Amino acid sequence: MLELNFQLAMRISLYLASSFSLGSALSYKRLTKRSSETQVHCKSANPEKFMALPVTNYDELRRNTKSMKHKMELFLMRSQRDFCNALAEHEPEANWRVDKWDRKSGGGGISCVMHEGKVLEKAGVNISVVHGVLPEKAVESMNSRGKQIAKAPAPFFACGISSVIHPRNPYVPTIHFNYRYFEVDDGNGNILSWFGGGTDLTPYYLNEEDAVFFHQMLKGALKKHGSDLYRRFKQWCDTYFYLPHRGETRGVGGIFFDDMNLSDADETFALIKDCADATIKSYIPMVDKHKNAGYGLAERNWQLLRRGRYVEFNLIYDRGTQFGLRTPDARIESILMSLPGTAKWEYMHEVKKGSEEEKLMDVLKNPVDWVPLD
Amino acid sequence: MLELNFQLAMRISLYLASSFSLGSALSYKRLTKRSSETQVHCKSANPEKFMALPVTNYDELRRNTKSMKHKMELFLMRSQRDFCNALAEHEPEANWRVDKWDRKSGGGGISCVMHEGKVLEKAGVNISVVHGVLPEKAVESMNSRGKQIAKAPAPFFACGISSVIHPRNPYVPTIHFNYRYFEVDDGNGNILSWFGGGTDLTPYYLNEEDAVFFHQMLKGALKKHGSDLYRRFKQWCDTYFYLPHRGETRGVGGIFFDDMNLSDADETFALIKDCADATIKSYIPMVDKHKNAGYGLAERNWQLLRRGRYVEFNLIYDRGTQFGLRTPDARIESILMSLPGTAKWEYMHEVKKGSEEEKLMDVLKNPVDWVPLD
Repeated sequence: MLELNFQLAMRISLYLASSFSLGSALSYKRLTKRSSETQVHCKSANPEKFMALPVTNYDELRRNTKSMKHKMELFLMRSQRDFCNALAEHEPEANWRVDKWDRKSGGGGISCVMHEGKVLEKAGVNISVVHGVLPEKAVESMNSRGKQIAKAPAPFFACGISSVIHPRNPYVPTIHFNYRYFEVDDGNGNILSWFGGGTDLTPYYLNEEDAVFFHQMLKGALKKHGSDLYRRFKQWCDTYFYLPHRGETRGVGGIFFDDMNLSDADETFALIKDCADATIKSYIPMVDKHKNAGYGLAERNWQLLRRGRYVEFNLIYDRGTQFGLRTPDARIESILMSLPGTAKWEYMHEVKKGSEEEKLMDVLKNPVDWVPLD
Repeated sequence: MLELNFQLAMRISLYLASSFSLGSALSYKRLTKRSSETQVHCKSANPEKFMALPVTNYDELRRNTKSMKHKMELFLMRSQRDFCNALAEHEPEANWRVDKWDRKSGGGGISCVMHEGKVLEKAGVNISVVHGVLPEKAVESMNSRGKQIAKAPAPFFACGISSVIHPRNPYVPTIHFNYRYFEVDDGNGNILSWFGGGTDLTPYYLNEEDAVFFHQMLKGALKKHGSDLYRRFKQWCDTYFYLPHRGETRGVGGIFFDDMNLSDADETFALIKDCADATIKSYIPMVDKHKNAGYGLAERNWQLLRRGRYVEFNLIYDRGTQFGLRTPDARIESILMSLPGTAKWEYMHEVKKGSEEEKLMDVLKNPVDWVPLD
């Protein structure tokens, strides 16, 4: 069973959600430009056909089977590869652009982005694996939120995967997911560590079957790790992905969790793997199911208006984005990869009564329990 | 000569810039829907052909020639009408949509918006005239920034005009302006009052002649009110309309000022009128000059990418927008009228060396003194 410390979680999550942004910091160099292959991978010393060579030496990753940060990095590399390859099967004409970047003060990342595809209008699957020292301000902020770090600068390690897929067809929902791991030296001989993550689905047209399927998959992944986890993470997601100025959620929800500083790290790692696996396995069938659905300009226009709301959420409320943008020399292009290719705003837009658009708005204004919570 | 209190200005400006947002608060009703005339105005009791009937009774406005709030409201009504009519001359096929809204706890506003015109892709000219009491938090915040208000709830009055014009042709720049007036009862028998405002020009392609003309007009308007005002307001504008995460200004600047609590309010009012007048008179010729310039998909695409930056500024940094979005029951549609109709984001977009796009980026990264500062 997991012991979750929920009380700190909402505020601490700024740091957790920013592990990706931190990872995006400072200067970078592009190692690989656009590849001529559909499934991009490094050509040498890459036996697992990752999207690029790992930030940490591969042999080192394989050797250290007891180090959580090494296990997590290897898992992130495989997730990125598997998700990119699964998406590429739907996008035979487009290529992933793979950018591997270095962080001056330690670590780096791999950003895989596809643009203007036939099925995927904009898709990004990024990982970051960074380490260094947390400055005093960051330590103070963490301590004020419940951590007990003796003094700055505190050595830290953070790694995560972050993905947002904006498909072209308005009947295919947008998906976002992010799974991350954080370690910090408390200065008293202890390493504090925690996991965070989540996924949420943003349809343009409500398909109840999809919403139920998505939540069923997530509930199934969480079930074996704790009987109340799905309920708590589902409700946390509804609270987090919410636009107060619009009075609506971003989509049909999913799961969101943070500050999982557990007694048994391996058990939490297993949970993270199960969630990431369920996320990918639930999304690909939805792309497959709807990618050829017929639609016209009206549906496209509605999709672009809803993408405007996605931009509003990410730029105004998303804590990872906010923190990343305020981090000096952050890799802005990786942080803002989450924004759609195109978005629209229309003054006083109203949905027609009884329309499919209204059906969506109803569930965004009144979050639904797509599957039983317990 | 003006006595300006600059020391408080940057932080106090949250409140000043939000006079428009405050004005947008609470419930509203639409009095006028889309009009069938090109130049919309009220049909009865509207001798000056305003866009809608004023928030305050017209006769009362005319009678109180010594009250600054009445003079300012009358001036805002005329500015809105004049600017809407001047723009409508360039947009013979499109109509202004005029929404008059009431604020539950006092006052209201008039929003005029044009959408999908031939020349203007999205244009908004909004005014708000609101009054009520500032809650304790707002008073505390004002006092912590230098005001001396005895206690909450403090009676206040705020009015302002706010406009953003996004033209269709990429060779016509976007313009923004906002002029506002604020009064608050300090609880000791005094009315504290101040003005704020500014305007900035956001071209998609640099036209140096336009930038010089725009700044010349503004410098001319400010010259008779104080010899150093243009320099101070121009530099303030470069500092305010800046995107730190991009390392670039929003456009070629203009003027920005705040917290003008002057000894001679009539003199400041004259300055505000001169600035608003110069803003309108400098913009219309630019629309006229470039509206029929030839362009293709590449120029349109660049315009939409730059509009993405406009969205980033407004949603992440603009204090008036931030404050408005956090005000309960604010009129969100009026606040977000400033967003473009369409915006794009492209991962790792780069401008070509020696291109017109690069020419623009150079001046955004290194602000230029378009006219001598003194």
